[in-house]
Amino acid sequence: MAQRHLDPTGPRPGTAAPLAKTRPGTVATAPTGDALAGYLRAQATEFLRALRLHRETGAGAGGSETSAEAARALRRSARRISASLHTFQPLLDADWCEAVRPELAWVSGTLAMEHACTARLERLLAALHRLSGSTAFPGAAGPPPGGRASGAAPVPAGAAPRGATAAPERGNLTVGAAKAGALLDRQLTLARTRAHSTALQALGSSRFHAVADKVAVLASEVPLTGPAATTDLRLLAGAAEDRLTDAVTALPLVTAGSPYNAAALVHGLSPDTVPHPQDAPWHQVRLLLRLHRYARETVSGPRGNAVVDLRLLAAGQALNLHRDASEAAAAAAQAARTPRIAPATAYALGVLHADQRHEVEAARFTFQQAWQKETVGA
Amino acid sequence: MAQRHLDPTGPRPGTAAPLAKTRPGTVATAPTGDALAGYLRAQATEFLRALRLHRETGAGAGGSETSAEAARALRRSARRISASLHTFQPLLDADWCEAVRPELAWVSGTLAMEHACTARLERLLAALHRLSGSTAFPGAAGPPPGGRASGAAPVPAGAAPRGATAAPERGNLTVGAAKAGALLDRQLTLARTRAHSTALQALGSSRFHAVADKVAVLASEVPLTGPAATTDLRLLAGAAEDRLTDAVTALPLVTAGSPYNAAALVHGLSPDTVPHPQDAPWHQVRLLLRLHRYARETVSGPRGNAVVDLRLLAAGQALNLHRDASEAAAAAAQAARTPRIAPATAYALGVLHADQRHEVEAARFTFQQAWQKETVGA
Repeated sequence: MAQRHLDPTGPRPGTAAPLAKTRPGTVATAPTGDALAGYLRAQATEFLRALRLHRETGAGAGGSETSAEAARALRRSARRISASLHTFQPLLDADWCEAVRPELAWVSGTLAMEHACTARLERLLAALHRLSGSTAFPGAAGPPPGGRASGAAPVPAGAAPRGATAAPERGNLTVGAAKAGALLDRQLTLARTRAHSTALQALGSSRFHAVADKVAVLASEVPLTGPAATTDLRLLAGAAEDRLTDAVTALPLVTAGSPYNAAALVHGLSPDTVPHPQDAPWHQVRLLLRLHRYARETVSGPRGNAVVDLRLLAAGQALNLHRDASEAAAAAAQAARTPRIAPATAYALGVLHADQRHEVEAARFTFQQAWQKETVGA
Repeated sequence: MAQRHLDPTGPRPGTAAPLAKTRPGTVATAPTGDALAGYLRAQATEFLRALRLHRETGAGAGGSETSAEAARALRRSARRISASLHTFQPLLDADWCEAVRPELAWVSGTLAMEHACTARLERLLAALHRLSGSTAFPGAAGPPPGGRASGAAPVPAGAAPRGATAAPERGNLTVGAAKAGALLDRQLTLARTRAHSTALQALGSSRFHAVADKVAVLASEVPLTGPAATTDLRLLAGAAEDRLTDAVTALPLVTAGSPYNAAALVHGLSPDTVPHPQDAPWHQVRLLLRLHRYARETVSGPRGNAVVDLRLLAAGQALNLHRDASEAAAAAAQAARTPRIAPATAYALGVLHADQRHEVEAARFTFQQAWQKETVGA
């Protein structure tokens, strides 16, 4: 567990009264509203830079690498601004926060959807090839046989809907695997096309322009409250860490740390597997871990403590894999409900679903291993 | 690794010439042909006792617990006699060994088949219930949700073909799982009925009577060769251990010891999954481990060394689970090839197949963990 900077019994956001009190002697060195304003200004500037880059490069069909990188940077800064508004809300104008946060979540969520479809399809096709014992991978520069497709570049807008997975070589798949692959390709490509259109529409909408305007103001002027100048940011960052720690404590970590516990596939054939209820607390921890990580960035800069950051990164990556595998498993189960599919297709989708639930279980194990690692320093 | 009693570079069975030479000073205390003869006489007596008990109790329909126990004892002694004839063959009349060993293998193999079908069906139905999130288990005294059905009693002969799994409660299964369960029940019950008839016919055949006659002779007269009186049994037992160690060394233990390596499901959708080629070396080690364990019994009695025996037992149980899960996975894949099944049935069988291959991988991990444990003493 990461070492606590401040008293863990300290106040949480929403209980604003004690925030004005800072400890005597720590005021001189403690990060306060100024640090928060600096962080927000930097992220807002990054958002505007990425948006400008995206507009310059994203118009062409085919989605250049620069355009994809710009979209990724847009999402990254939107997530960070939104997270800071959440964690440090008592130091910021409440009405302004309430107006901006949902809009930023809408931007990053909308931009993420197309990438999620692309990554999900790549993950599932890679898994089908692995399960067929094929060494060939359909993508041009595909992931290793382990099927971890997390490194795939997002192509949220401006790109042709069919990218790297356009022409999977299915010659070396069995009939069932090939048909399952074709079905998933059809369904997820359709979803990706829709997400692509939605993202394009969103980026051209007046709603998005309003968000961009708000971020432009933020780049020069952060709406701090009165107490912000003297409040130690670490108090609120510590509360974010508390929320993470509490949520992790509630996870079934003993089971997760015992290999081959077969917990992730329980209910694998029950009717309510999409989405899988047992995954929800893990998804929640994933979000809380991200909030904690961004709060640390705000307090101590992105290079605050390399050891702790690596541990948090490893834990976060495991939870990203958990989410990816969970959603891929759900997509396979969903595809199996398509009317009039062949039994061989359904069988392959069943194997694929179980394989991805297996990856869910593996990701929980990896998270447990990363989390229990002792931190050095803090 | 178990400590070697004798020089591991010593001769192996088949190279009979050096066996007459024993080391000076060790002859007085070393177990020789007399110990082998004693072991074989005891096992032959046990075989005859079990056979008598089985004939007395096995006639009634329904297969009493005593009858099942008798059949188990029959197989157990047949396996041990056969193993001794293999490991210590140079000390026994070669023609006699060649005539008896295949017949004993036929007896234990034939008696094992019905039990295997019963256990496989129980394992698969338990897994379907687990995968459906059902807490109820179809058997009267079924295995825990982990699906390890290895403790089921064998009912090789005299029992009604439909035993504990006769009426699985499928009310709490989804349609696909219920249909998959019904299909497996039909197919494996048919196989069990056939195995039952085959076992009954075998036990009444002149071929079986000839085996029983040979074992009856063995109970009083073991056909030792001349060198048997002075040959240290540990020399041949050590060779059996060498064969085991060599085979274990050739296993992919580094992969097996790394949790969630996903190796067992590779080729899970390839056409040649029944039987799974990658399982063969593990099955071979299972047989060599049994030979080694029986050779230890012959040399030092069944209570030779408790610590090593526990380790060998744990490793052996993991390999039994490996075999059971491998065959259950194959049965699920086979059932999925039944013509005209519903897609939901095929999907459930796919999930079930992958689940059992997951258990195969888990068994390899358990074996790796058991095997790497240091032995105390030897």
